Amino acid sequence: MSAAERFIHEALEVIIDEAVKKATDVQEKVCDWQSPEKLRELLDLELKDGGESDSKILQHCKNAIRYSVKTSHPRFFNQLFAGLEPYSMVASFITEAVKTSLYTYEVAPVFTLMEDAVLKKMMELIGWDEGGDGIFNPGGSMSNMYAVNLARYRFCPDIKEVGLYNAPRLVMFTSQEGHYSISKAAALLGLGTKNVYAVPSDDRGKMIPSALEEKIELARSEGAVPFFVNATAGTTVFGAFDPVDEIADICERHSLWLHVDVTDSVAWNPHKMLMACLQCSAFLIKDKTSLLQRCHSAKASYLFQQDKFYDVSYDTGDKSVQCSRKPDAFKFWLMWKALGSSELERRVDRALAMARYLAQTVKKREGFHLLMKPEYANVCFWYVPPALRGLPDACSGLLQVAPVIKERMMKTGSMMIGYQTHGDKPNFFRMVVINPQVSKQDLDFVLDEIHSLGKDLR
Amino acid sequence: MSAAERFIHEALEVIIDEAVKKATDVQEKVCDWQSPEKLRELLDLELKDGGESDSKILQHCKNAIRYSVKTSHPRFFNQLFAGLEPYSMVASFITEAVKTSLYTYEVAPVFTLMEDAVLKKMMELIGWDEGGDGIFNPGGSMSNMYAVNLARYRFCPDIKEVGLYNAPRLVMFTSQEGHYSISKAAALLGLGTKNVYAVPSDDRGKMIPSALEEKIELARSEGAVPFFVNATAGTTVFGAFDPVDEIADICERHSLWLHVDVTDSVAWNPHKMLMACLQCSAFLIKDKTSLLQRCHSAKASYLFQQDKFYDVSYDTGDKSVQCSRKPDAFKFWLMWKALGSSELERRVDRALAMARYLAQTVKKREGFHLLMKPEYANVCFWYVPPALRGLPDACSGLLQVAPVIKERMMKTGSMMIGYQTHGDKPNFFRMVVINPQVSKQDLDFVLDEIHSLGKDLR
Repeated sequence: MSAAERFIHEALEVIIDEAVKKATDVQEKVCDWQSPEKLRELLDLELKDGGESDSKILQHCKNAIRYSVKTSHPRFFNQLFAGLEPYSMVASFITEAVKTSLYTYEVAPVFTLMEDAVLKKMMELIGWDEGGDGIFNPGGSMSNMYAVNLARYRFCPDIKEVGLYNAPRLVMFTSQEGHYSISKAAALLGLGTKNVYAVPSDDRGKMIPSALEEKIELARSEGAVPFFVNATAGTTVFGAFDPVDEIADICERHSLWLHVDVTDSVAWNPHKMLMACLQCSAFLIKDKTSLLQRCHSAKASYLFQQDKFYDVSYDTGDKSVQCSRKPDAFKFWLMWKALGSSELERRVDRALAMARYLAQTVKKREGFHLLMKPEYANVCFWYVPPALRGLPDACSGLLQVAPVIKERMMKTGSMMIGYQTHGDKPNFFRMVVINPQVSKQDLDFVLDEIHSLGKDLR
Repeated sequence: MSAAERFIHEALEVIIDEAVKKATDVQEKVCDWQSPEKLRELLDLELKDGGESDSKILQHCKNAIRYSVKTSHPRFFNQLFAGLEPYSMVASFITEAVKTSLYTYEVAPVFTLMEDAVLKKMMELIGWDEGGDGIFNPGGSMSNMYAVNLARYRFCPDIKEVGLYNAPRLVMFTSQEGHYSISKAAALLGLGTKNVYAVPSDDRGKMIPSALEEKIELARSEGAVPFFVNATAGTTVFGAFDPVDEIADICERHSLWLHVDVTDSVAWNPHKMLMACLQCSAFLIKDKTSLLQRCHSAKASYLFQQDKFYDVSYDTGDKSVQCSRKPDAFKFWLMWKALGSSELERRVDRALAMARYLAQTVKKREGFHLLMKPEYANVCFWYVPPALRGLPDACSGLLQVAPVIKERMMKTGSMMIGYQTHGDKPNFFRMVVINPQVSKQDLDFVLDEIHSLGKDLR
């Protein structure tokens, strides 16, 4: 066995012990919190002229895992991803080891076909009987950017060549609860964040269709040109679903591109609810006129020769705004193959049932208050320490409670949950239940622990 | 051991056997070519309601590796990446298993600090004694897009909010040999591909500084506003280096942002010459006024709370146009730590020496013709079959030669090399020598094999 092989073998043992077994063990900590200054020392970050021995490098690997947050731990609820999905993890190891990029069939034949198969199956599940087109890309923000760019291209293809200089002021709409990536897209694409009109949502976080219509009229009356509506299926904070059917009717009436819906395009991240390894994120588009290709192509002669000996429509690279692009679809394909659609469905059902259990328990417990009944996997709630209960100014006191409890839970390493303010609502916990490894006991533990960490606050 | 652990163990054995040992074994094929139609059958792509057994899934893993191109094979010269780097590979397995995203210190403490350490060291090597800022992102195309966007933001920060509608026509410059990602950026950013002015290069592929100056004057005379120059250090086809010092002088005189240089920003992909696992790509910027943050921030309240208990400047997520972002810096950090700067340098030197050896051998061999003496790791050459040698119309015959040889080499699986046309030059081979595992024998083999696959062509 070569030295490299021996090192890889030993490192794989470390990965299994530390990042698989220990990281998912409920008896272990979720995180081993260190301040940036302390962690810098612990990690021995300096890069030098000379190298280090394999045994030292293995120690660095152990440290990297040890001080990282265990996002696969049953008590990690801090993000919209969680849990360890072994099939997807193995697939991601394979994509790393095989080390290729999805631009041409000739360098990525397997993954080109797998991406195609996965995209087709996803479109089938969405209900696009006639199919469409799509592309995996590095995250939901990129998917949303693709949607805006394609909508703009469909609206006025000339912009690709001549820029926005002679274009009318183009306006986009998203709910006030929509993800910030729509604004980032507007900034990057030269459309301007001020031309993203925020449509009011109701108190559950759902876009109000009549308010969308008003905003469209407003934009028109200002001489601007509406072209794009983003509907959200599962908002970041509350997990709310915009009323897509009603929004679709409005978009049809006004000839606007509707993203995340049955009309034009969808951003779907299997790395969230379906637990695929990061990143696994698809952008799907109903169009079948090669819009992706026409909008993004640059026709590089060193990659996309037209005199190849195979059907060059399998060279998908020019659909992307990237050049190198990772075969993320394989992570989803392998787990889907192993689990089947039914088990994927059961997992989501189980996670949602757990979220409902959590919400019911929060409702019953003294000192805990639900912001609203959860629509999806996000459960938002306040914890009010005994000293603040029933006080008229509990609200201002609450601003401090969640950050302090968060600090204490991080330093204890017992669990991880996010918190935030929202509008005039003081800091609340936002817990996202995704991992099917999570049990009712884990959820009970979370509430016990919050109380135990915060009961002295005043 | 749980079923999941057992599966992971078995899969890791498959990965080591197939994707490490066999994939780098010179006795094995570089690729096992199958047409898309045939490969579709071999892979059994269909995703069903029910799942499949672990043993079947392992078979799928084997197939995925078997029919993928072996980019780590010593005879893979088809792309600007090659070779297996074990430290980087292990690091990428760890980032997959640890499964986190670089937006906040709290979910990615280790990788946040490692990214910072790697970026600082890279800037030190570039010679930015005062430091700067930077971000790892999914590929060089994205880095170039970052550069254009920051240059635009520095030129006129209002564009972020109000869009390009009242802006003057902004013009960018890159050489005719520059990478297509600059055009893709212009399209995506609403600047328009026609506003990318192609500056003529000399016959070695280097930008002609006086021609840049002429183009700048031309744009000004048209009433447009130049703001950005892209210089290329290692063009995609010829591996040519633009004369950065002279270009920098011109940019300074005209107050233009210069990308890939010592003045403003650099795109540097360790996944190319330094063999880090895909993707490992940094964008570096000399600015120290938080331009990255100011240009891209959207201040999401659910991630970037300002009342956290640690220094929130460690939350780097808002510098990115993405939301989730992978800790790619770790792949570079671990290999750098293991090898040291000196070994990295030796590897590059060795690859360049091999490229020179190849060029010398091409020059000596009958029927082979160098396009030019290589400046970097790209060696471009023609093979002329005996029947075409000395013919006045060899040029048109050559158009067919490389594609047919490529088809034959793919079907034999003996090696992989790219080909392309360039301007009025008929199809030639573009070979990129990166992998330090490549020996002189491998290079001799390549030329023998080209002759043996193509000697009957006429």
